[in-house]
Amino acid sequence: MKKIAVLPGDGIGPEIVAEAVKVLEALDLPLQLDWADVGGKAYETSGHPLPPATLKLALDADAVLFGAVGDWKYDKLERSLRPEQAILGLRKALGLFANFRPAICYEQLTHASSLKPELVAGLDILLIRELTGDIYFGQPRGRRTAVDGHFPGADEAFDTMRYSRPEIERIAHVAFQAAQKRSKRLTSVDKANVLETSQFWKDIVIEVHKSYPDVELDHMYVDNAAMQLVKAPKKFDVVVTGNMFGDILSDEAAMLTGSIGMLPSASLDANNKGLYEPSHGSAPDIAGRGIANPLATILSAAMMLKFSLNQLDAAARIEAAVESVLAQGLRTADIWSEGTSKVSTIEMGDAVVKAI
Amino acid sequence: MKKIAVLPGDGIGPEIVAEAVKVLEALDLPLQLDWADVGGKAYETSGHPLPPATLKLALDADAVLFGAVGDWKYDKLERSLRPEQAILGLRKALGLFANFRPAICYEQLTHASSLKPELVAGLDILLIRELTGDIYFGQPRGRRTAVDGHFPGADEAFDTMRYSRPEIERIAHVAFQAAQKRSKRLTSVDKANVLETSQFWKDIVIEVHKSYPDVELDHMYVDNAAMQLVKAPKKFDVVVTGNMFGDILSDEAAMLTGSIGMLPSASLDANNKGLYEPSHGSAPDIAGRGIANPLATILSAAMMLKFSLNQLDAAARIEAAVESVLAQGLRTADIWSEGTSKVSTIEMGDAVVKAI
Ligand SMILES: CC(C)[C@H](C(=O)O)[C@@H](O)C(=O)O
Ligand SMILES: CC(C)[C@H](C(=O)O)[C@@H](O)C(=O)O
Repeated sequence: MKKIAVLPGDGIGPEIVAEAVKVLEALDLPLQLDWADVGGKAYETSGHPLPPATLKLALDADAVLFGAVGDWKYDKLERSLRPEQAILGLRKALGLFANFRPAICYEQLTHASSLKPELVAGLDILLIRELTGDIYFGQPRGRRTAVDGHFPGADEAFDTMRYSRPEIERIAHVAFQAAQKRSKRLTSVDKANVLETSQFWKDIVIEVHKSYPDVELDHMYVDNAAMQLVKAPKKFDVVVTGNMFGDILSDEAAMLTGSIGMLPSASLDANNKGLYEPSHGSAPDIAGRGIANPLATILSAAMMLKFSLNQLDAAARIEAAVESVLAQGLRTADIWSEGTSKVSTIEMGDAVVKAI
Repeated sequence: MKKIAVLPGDGIGPEIVAEAVKVLEALDLPLQLDWADVGGKAYETSGHPLPPATLKLALDADAVLFGAVGDWKYDKLERSLRPEQAILGLRKALGLFANFRPAICYEQLTHASSLKPELVAGLDILLIRELTGDIYFGQPRGRRTAVDGHFPGADEAFDTMRYSRPEIERIAHVAFQAAQKRSKRLTSVDKANVLETSQFWKDIVIEVHKSYPDVELDHMYVDNAAMQLVKAPKKFDVVVTGNMFGDILSDEAAMLTGSIGMLPSASLDANNKGLYEPSHGSAPDIAGRGIANPLATILSAAMMLKFSLNQLDAAARIEAAVESVLAQGLRTADIWSEGTSKVSTIEMGDAVVKAI
């Protein structure tokens, strides 16, 4: 019996997670599902976005199925109480350092991309973002009196970007191994022409490369990567980068596909325990209307079965079922187009269950 | 007599700057042009990418016309000697804190964009990037022994992101004033949900907003901005952001237009002295072949006349001449398409002169 912590969160989170759970239950696997509040919902029920009980459930579980957190109504809370602290807290406490962000353009949805179809048809990028280091968690940070810069003596705010050798080594190994399983090409993105942290990152990625001579490695500056993703996204295969640049580039890459409502993600620790969540956010503007696309969350459940629970067959069945509902022409509002059938969140979940 | 420091630099720099100079000379203005080496070229002639003589020329000038720096052949040099240190050094020494990066989609070139024409036709974004603060110059930076993070005791590299109050105030004023001259809408981009520096940035932008009640201000996280630029670029008008995020987003926005070879840029100090350069790089792969597009550099010269030399008529004449050569169907290789006439760098420069 494997334990799954189910954390639906805010906005459309509960609706889309319910469909993923329905799909998991249809597979009749030895799973024990335990629910808890997280994000704004948890703040409302227990005064903190990541209450101790929720954290304990996640720590004790074999995997976490996560919906989404955040809503404008929490914007006025002090930072430590805002919903997104839950996701940062979970990443840190669970040591989820390897974030897998596929950017896949589904054949039937190519037209939904902002880009010309020939540039995105068949797009399949795997962006691997380091998730527990960098400027997200670096110390010191806060307010101080400026010592350098153009206005010494003025008030300033500061943060620390940082990466240690073992942190870079372990994400580099994850990335090279992922590249070995795909096209054997890896692009490491940094800003080594400006940042000490990036130069260190680049040096260590080059060292780790020695253990993976079958993988072709190249390096790209982050500004250039942001451009090349727009210009010729299909030139990328596996991309590895730090937490901050990965935040920006993984979202840019996801949006290129035109169907971010389809994209799952996995955040793994060193033992393949992971947190699985859709790449999109909590979309409070459409919450409760039954129109959100549950497929990214359903595909996140498939990733969970594959990466954390070693249920490769079950994962493949979900993926095939999703392909099948798309082939049947079923579409939630976000991916709907002329000639396809518009379905609700629940109808989409039901269709996936039926296809399984 | 106004003094212009002309710094052609590396790669295609000399070719494109020569055309801009030709255009300036055709206008018969009271300008004194003085040349100096910069970047890799300067390293080769004097052992440093920004030799004292070049820096002095730039400091003494009323404006700097800059080509581009960088070539793969300098990749092995230690960081402080690499070509890009010249541009960082000039920004810092001249106090060029306000970088104007227009992302304009020219009517005749809309087809060259990766994006569907309806998404970019008429696109006209002005991205304002702070250019002398942030993690680019923050101290301390370097190597140390990790104190926090997952591997205390390990070697790590680090950098400091920082902004002081007056640095944020002055760029905010520049941005609000630019917005007042356009659609009166300003988007400030930050990562205030994670970074102390960003929260400070956001707070101060909100304060400065009080002096510009006619401007509508909104805030966007950098990851979302990277997405919205792809999804609906025309929703943006004036955007202001820090040095690091601005580096990434300004290049992404430029690439959306499909004709980065057309986009000028200005980097201004507090007194409208500025450095003007094309948004694209030194393109060493096509250097010396006479095929580079000089229009971004020619339009940078127009920005120079407008912002630093108060020669509004002359600037308008250049802009009109560029419109005219495009209308004539003249295209360098990067923007060429079926049915237009392919011209060389020099032919394009000549055509602009003729149109003036
Ligand atoms: C909510 C926020 C803290 C988070 C991040 O920046 O990592 C989000 O953007 C993401 O990418 O998961
Ligand atoms: C060359 C590099 C240091 C520079 C930067 O990052 O600012 C460049 O990318 C730019 O945007 O002008």
